[in-house]
Amino acid sequence: MIYSFANDYAEGCHPSILKALTDNNFIQQAGYGDDEYTKNAESIIKQLTAADVDVHMIAGGTLANLTVLASILKPFESVVAAATGHIYVNETGAIEATGHKVEAAPSENGKLRPEDIIPFLNKARGHHVVRTRAVYISDSTELGTVYTKQELSGLSEFCKANNLILFMDGARLPMALTAPSNDLTLIDIAALTDIFYIGGTKCGALLGEAVVIVNSELKKDFKYHLKQRGALTAKGRSMGVQFDQLLRNDMIFDLARHANLMAGKLSNAIKSLGYPMLIDSDTNQIFPVFPNRVIRKLQQKYGFLVWKIIDSDYSSVRLITSWATPENMVDKFIEDLSQI
Amino acid sequence: MIYSFANDYAEGCHPSILKALTDNNFIQQAGYGDDEYTKNAESIIKQLTAADVDVHMIAGGTLANLTVLASILKPFESVVAAATGHIYVNETGAIEATGHKVEAAPSENGKLRPEDIIPFLNKARGHHVVRTRAVYISDSTELGTVYTKQELSGLSEFCKANNLILFMDGARLPMALTAPSNDLTLIDIAALTDIFYIGGTKCGALLGEAVVIVNSELKKDFKYHLKQRGALTAKGRSMGVQFDQLLRNDMIFDLARHANLMAGKLSNAIKSLGYPMLIDSDTNQIFPVFPNRVIRKLQQKYGFLVWKIIDSDYSSVRLITSWATPENMVDKFIEDLSQI
Amino acid sequence: MIYSFANDYAEGCHPSILKALTDNNFIQQAGYGDDEYTKNAESIIKQLTAADVDVHMIAGGTLANLTVLASILKPFESVVAAATGHIYVNETGAIEATGHKVEAAPSENGKLRPEDIIPFLNKARGHHVVRTRAVYISDSTELGTVYTKQELSGLSEFCKANNLILFMDGARLPMALTAPSNDLTLIDIAALTDIFYIGGTKCGALLGEAVVIVNSELKKDFKYHLKQRGALTAKGRSMGVQFDQLLRNDMIFDLARHANLMAGKLSNAIKSLGYPMLIDSDTNQIFPVFPNRVIRKLQQKYGFLVWKIIDSDYSSVRLITSWATPENMVDKFIEDLSQI
Amino acid sequence: MIYSFANDYAEGCHPSILKALTDNNFIQQAGYGDDEYTKNAESIIKQLTAADVDVHMIAGGTLANLTVLASILKPFESVVAAATGHIYVNETGAIEATGHKVEAAPSENGKLRPEDIIPFLNKARGHHVVRTRAVYISDSTELGTVYTKQELSGLSEFCKANNLILFMDGARLPMALTAPSNDLTLIDIAALTDIFYIGGTKCGALLGEAVVIVNSELKKDFKYHLKQRGALTAKGRSMGVQFDQLLRNDMIFDLARHANLMAGKLSNAIKSLGYPMLIDSDTNQIFPVFPNRVIRKLQQKYGFLVWKIIDSDYSSVRLITSWATPENMVDKFIEDLSQI
Repeated sequence: MIYSFANDYAEGCHPSILKALTDNNFIQQAGYGDDEYTKNAESIIKQLTAADVDVHMIAGGTLANLTVLASILKPFESVVAAATGHIYVNETGAIEATGHKVEAAPSENGKLRPEDIIPFLNKARGHHVVRTRAVYISDSTELGTVYTKQELSGLSEFCKANNLILFMDGARLPMALTAPSNDLTLIDIAALTDIFYIGGTKCGALLGEAVVIVNSELKKDFKYHLKQRGALTAKGRSMGVQFDQLLRNDMIFDLARHANLMAGKLSNAIKSLGYPMLIDSDTNQIFPVFPNRVIRKLQQKYGFLVWKIIDSDYSSVRLITSWATPENMVDKFIEDLSQI
Repeated sequence: MIYSFANDYAEGCHPSILKALTDNNFIQQAGYGDDEYTKNAESIIKQLTAADVDVHMIAGGTLANLTVLASILKPFESVVAAATGHIYVNETGAIEATGHKVEAAPSENGKLRPEDIIPFLNKARGHHVVRTRAVYISDSTELGTVYTKQELSGLSEFCKANNLILFMDGARLPMALTAPSNDLTLIDIAALTDIFYIGGTKCGALLGEAVVIVNSELKKDFKYHLKQRGALTAKGRSMGVQFDQLLRNDMIFDLARHANLMAGKLSNAIKSLGYPMLIDSDTNQIFPVFPNRVIRKLQQKYGFLVWKIIDSDYSSVRLITSWATPENMVDKFIEDLSQI
Repeated sequence: MIYSFANDYAEGCHPSILKALTDNNFIQQAGYGDDEYTKNAESIIKQLTAADVDVHMIAGGTLANLTVLASILKPFESVVAAATGHIYVNETGAIEATGHKVEAAPSENGKLRPEDIIPFLNKARGHHVVRTRAVYISDSTELGTVYTKQELSGLSEFCKANNLILFMDGARLPMALTAPSNDLTLIDIAALTDIFYIGGTKCGALLGEAVVIVNSELKKDFKYHLKQRGALTAKGRSMGVQFDQLLRNDMIFDLARHANLMAGKLSNAIKSLGYPMLIDSDTNQIFPVFPNRVIRKLQQKYGFLVWKIIDSDYSSVRLITSWATPENMVDKFIEDLSQI
Repeated sequence: MIYSFANDYAEGCHPSILKALTDNNFIQQAGYGDDEYTKNAESIIKQLTAADVDVHMIAGGTLANLTVLASILKPFESVVAAATGHIYVNETGAIEATGHKVEAAPSENGKLRPEDIIPFLNKARGHHVVRTRAVYISDSTELGTVYTKQELSGLSEFCKANNLILFMDGARLPMALTAPSNDLTLIDIAALTDIFYIGGTKCGALLGEAVVIVNSELKKDFKYHLKQRGALTAKGRSMGVQFDQLLRNDMIFDLARHANLMAGKLSNAIKSLGYPMLIDSDTNQIFPVFPNRVIRKLQQKYGFLVWKIIDSDYSSVRLITSWATPENMVDKFIEDLSQI
């Protein structure tokens, strides 16, 4: 039997969520996000961010990204993302389908810096080119890296100075905030971005992303956008209950920390066996470089993505751990690898 | 405390779903609808429809409607719906946001007949007008009515003869198929439509609609559309498990039958108390006409929508029951009404 | 040989335009509407409207309609039009293709009144329905009728009171403003609408509509929308020269008056021969009702549209005159008709 | 007075066009491209291409590009272009506004080669990424370069082998086909592409691009797309007459040849004065590199675009000539430059 390190959504959800869903199953609730669980989750997020935010639950990351960006941008405005950004490479043109150009900045580590964005502002052809209006970042990034407080502050200042809206895709935000190298808090995230989301799908929920709107100009009419994009869930309670649970006692962060720890253990062992890493990451995605014959051996027992062909002999792979990864599978992987 | 007859998504889900979610919670599964539960649900639907259909789970009705229609229509093609149709009146322009006109045909009972569609085909101005290419119907309709086999067969023939794609919104299809006046089966639905869905959200699931593609020309590339519209759920298992349960042993139909029975009991009692119905319906939505003072009294104890103002003294209301409606609340409502 | 009364764009343009195009042909000019002829036309329109308007030339009516509406509306906002409105029936879903619903109000004479719009404002379902934000009217209407000052003032007040943007399609505005029953001026139009256009294509130009933006909130960034929709003409001078000519000494109104006079002469003669009119119009579109055999006879010599089948014996036709209609063709038509 | 080498649309049109417009001004014609001049132009293009093509006139390049691409692509399909391509850098997101991603391939000379396109076909993530379906090229390119027959044949074969539609933006196709280094003919263009256009705006017309559809699968329903995008001109004769003239006796190629000759003369003189060229071009756009103080001197008498800052002392500029450029202005520029 194959054990999968292919992604962080291979299992169900944290058992406490199933218990909560069961406990309140027959309590009638208002629809469309007006249930008390969603309100409770919103209330916890207000505390965690120390900000008067609006919170909306959306059933998936691409749906969240397209709904948020379509709500922010005028028809001729664009969003800039790292060339590795999910909205640029991985969403089948979902943003463009709402009418907006995604502009891609080259990035080696998945992160954006002010200097990466400047060329887009300097297109300087007036109405003959799109106007860059939003900046999309992800934390942790698609390469497992995280923003430091200094980096995010710099980006935030730059955006404010240039009238750019800063939107953070937080599908793996809990992993970012519990990474060893992280020095950001949810309070910082809310202070430094205009809108972001806290991922549920990859962080212990059955499904759902909690979109957090900080910038008050973006709050008004957001439910119209939700409804129009098919993102306003009738039985909103089904996500409200989950985030209500995940956010209690910082459970979501404990789950993320476990995912990071398991990846860290894998990473350290792999490195100590002499294999290099394609990218330096301390969250739940790691990118070791193996000889192809090692990869073929591992594939007999483990599922994972071959990320990048390095040369005719070597490739890097992507290993992902999650809240549900049992430590003994990590140990087994390390042992199997050490035997090859 | 107020008991709500406002909609059929006020509670959680059937307990057997929570049990199944719990039982298989830690079994790893492929993402994006390739899990074994979704495959199993698909397999049951193939049996129930006696057709080689493709099945895709989508997290909500509006998202299903917009994804399906955007996948079917060329840019200049339109869909015709009853003027009461959900896509025309209730989705904040979701279909138009994908670029397509929704053409509305007047309808008194929420149903479409060939003669309602003919005028749209006869616009006959060539490329100066949209080309009507799809027909959207719902069963049961937004007014609680259901199609007979004769009606649906007539519509189906008409569509085939005129190169129109017939799409059925089945958010409440289980209620339709278990209505006293119904003579259709899932086999008929699959034989007579090109694409339809079986509602989960309103029929005992936490969320989810199972889109069933019958017409093989519509199958290809559908996942591209799903992904682009944000409708391809990473943790597809979360809906797969639910439909796998709901479809076993016809449970979804048992749940729907209960909803219909509760509405029927309400309806009979209301009529025997001398109140007329705005529309004749035998599914889980009923539309009694009450004096406004009766409505005000009822509102102290029950939640429901005031549907239509009849005159200065009378209005019709919409009462909805569901798989979760306890019979004693129906009895209580009847008693309370009889006391007014 | 057949003479056509089918439309008002069968000929080229007023000869003075060709002369002006020739006279300044080799004078270099800036592109994209920054040429001196366009600026001059804008300057004349500022005088004629007594308002500090922005003017942009667009190569056609549908392109003008879709660019204007896409620039005004947020994604979830809609425009309401008469059910006879060009954007609703005649533009192959051009507005919907920009993502917006067109809501249609029944109208017998092609005009909208506040009471026709009220139901759209009263949908009152919050974010579950589109928000009506713009009102589209045409003057003269698609049925040849014109707004009175009282009607337009009432509509304008209503729009202001309800935060609606009033947009007038003026493809035949010169005909409206010179109709016998008209009491509006360009100063009124600018005072009572937010944005409108003065048609060139149907009023003596080779092509082009002059969009006039009165509401200053709609001026900003309009060129971005123009460019994005393909409506920013590189050689803007080609339309600038034409409007510069047409607007000098009120030539465009003289041309329109001629069109109206020719239609009036036709109309009076037809009525005096005992044929009724489907609609009472005093601009350049008239809708007489003829026996079908009369229509067949006329079709041997004249081109026109059969507008509406009245019954098995009678139909109404649409006859259109223009700035280029020679009076002797009108006389000939009348004589031919009187001989049938 | 400043003489402009800034673009090729600063003047009106070739005088023979104005004469033709005048000669046939009062001849009634059908609208929407069904006039006899458009048909005649189509007929000439059929001869010049030796192919049974469909021809449609569109009022501008961006409008042509967006209409063509929106008609070709399914919602989830993309077009690949050189990173210098007009649709990627210069159209304010016009293509994305129709819902489609434009993928950009790095290119040093403005041209695309099969190897530039391969990476987009190898994204190989199935429905998680857009499917590349169309290839956009321009000839001459935005950098003034032209395709050789061998290059275009290679690209054409590659597209056919990979089920890609090859679309050529021919805003300056006449300049390409008359360039000294060119070995392509219109017959080749039609044989090697699926759809292309012959530019009028930059090649002697007042405005208009003649879209030529070779691939018969793309012909059907094209007028629906034209109408929906606002690109179906009511008075189509206004462009028909122009192309009818331009295409007679190869006039459009004579005009283009003149433009190229003027640019060649400029180019040779500039190079013989010791200034390098940024790009090697033999059409009507040239890109000399000058010291900034030379540029400042020239700007006192001539209009042109500063194209690219090379370093603190040098920049390249873009000089454009046209059918209307008088040789004495070229001589004057050379003399002025030689005196600096």
